[in-house]
Amino acid sequence: MNELYPQIEQFYATQMQLLDDGDVQEWAGTFTHDGVFEANAHPEPARGREAIAAAAKRTVTELTEQGLVRRHWIGMLSVRPNDDGSVAARSYAVVLQTPKGGQAEIRFSTVCEDVLVRRGGDWQVLDRKVSRDDLT
Amino acid sequence: MNELYPQIEQFYATQMQLLDDGDVQEWAGTFTHDGVFEANAHPEPARGREAIAAAAKRTVTELTEQGLVRRHWIGMLSVRPNDDGSVAARSYAVVLQTPKGGQAEIRFSTVCEDVLVRRGGDWQVLDRKVSRDDLT
Amino acid sequence: MNELYPQIEQFYATQMQLLDDGDVQEWAGTFTHDGVFEANAHPEPARGREAIAAAAKRTVTELTEQGLVRRHWIGMLSVRPNDDGSVAARSYAVVLQTPKGGQAEIRFSTVCEDVLVRRGGDWQVLDRKVSRDDLT
Repeated sequence: MNELYPQIEQFYATQMQLLDDGDVQEWAGTFTHDGVFEANAHPEPARGREAIAAAAKRTVTELTEQGLVRRHWIGMLSVRPNDDGSVAARSYAVVLQTPKGGQAEIRFSTVCEDVLVRRGGDWQVLDRKVSRDDLT
Repeated sequence: MNELYPQIEQFYATQMQLLDDGDVQEWAGTFTHDGVFEANAHPEPARGREAIAAAAKRTVTELTEQGLVRRHWIGMLSVRPNDDGSVAARSYAVVLQTPKGGQAEIRFSTVCEDVLVRRGGDWQVLDRKVSRDDLT
Repeated sequence: MNELYPQIEQFYATQMQLLDDGDVQEWAGTFTHDGVFEANAHPEPARGREAIAAAAKRTVTELTEQGLVRRHWIGMLSVRPNDDGSVAARSYAVVLQTPKGGQAEIRFSTVCEDVLVRRGGDWQVLDRKVSRDDLT
């Protein structure tokens, strides 16, 4: 556990920075090839890296056009190793948003439930479920 | 220290998630039987698990009735081992609140000063002092 | 890495608490003697502990006069050891601000890029670059 916890923290930091920097392909690469991203704000899950990258690409393009900077923060990370070597990670995630020349605000408060697996020395998301607090 | 720090992070993640999920009895179980919860927002400290659970129960009931979701985040966690095996943990804690269908906001910014002790393999809070920034 | 990560987390917790508590001299002591603090919000970098302490002192004095409490939070900390023993740390930093008797708010959302070095058993900032999201 004491070995695992910092690894998972580092994983999330890297992953969220990739997304917020607009590195959509690299970000999608932090999911397994068959990774699933499900959210109570989306009509249906994105399945596989291509679908995950495409959805992120649309959002990044919109935000850029509107001059908005987003920062995804993970907190209160609870890490539970499963018997099969995967890891169940339950955390809080907030999205902070800042308009050019304007005031930062909390856009969303969510709970993020991940199944993480090791692939070739790296952690990857096999399954992600994000629940926005305003929709629950 | 390097062993201790992730343990304490995991402890806080578990503890805050229990509270925010409304698992009031389990949450109170993360305090020692004679644990004390003091706050500059409360007229007097809650002493012992029963009193701590009862106070949390009242808050959880109110929030549910009002359709509000709260998330307690701990950050900037500073961990200092004491000579007697207990741990002094000083951190920042914010309460995020989201109304059903509405906008997340920061309800409170606080400083949390804990004395943590090991009991039967788990960390527990012996003494907690929470100071809201708006009241100091 | 698993050893390093908690050390750096502890470092930031200590450092930010010193600043927010107004311990300006001790805070400046978490930079190297020749440390540099650069920010896209400042006309030019502060060079050396004295300049860094002086700039912080002005801010602390202003905030105290206005009855404002600030809390600096670091999150999504990514830690990368360099070959020379220094550490590149890239993180998000937000400034929360609470007026006496008022509502906490996010003052700024930023990215913080540090080069950290060990000096006499402690980590210190050799070089810091802070980019406010509203100015980018």
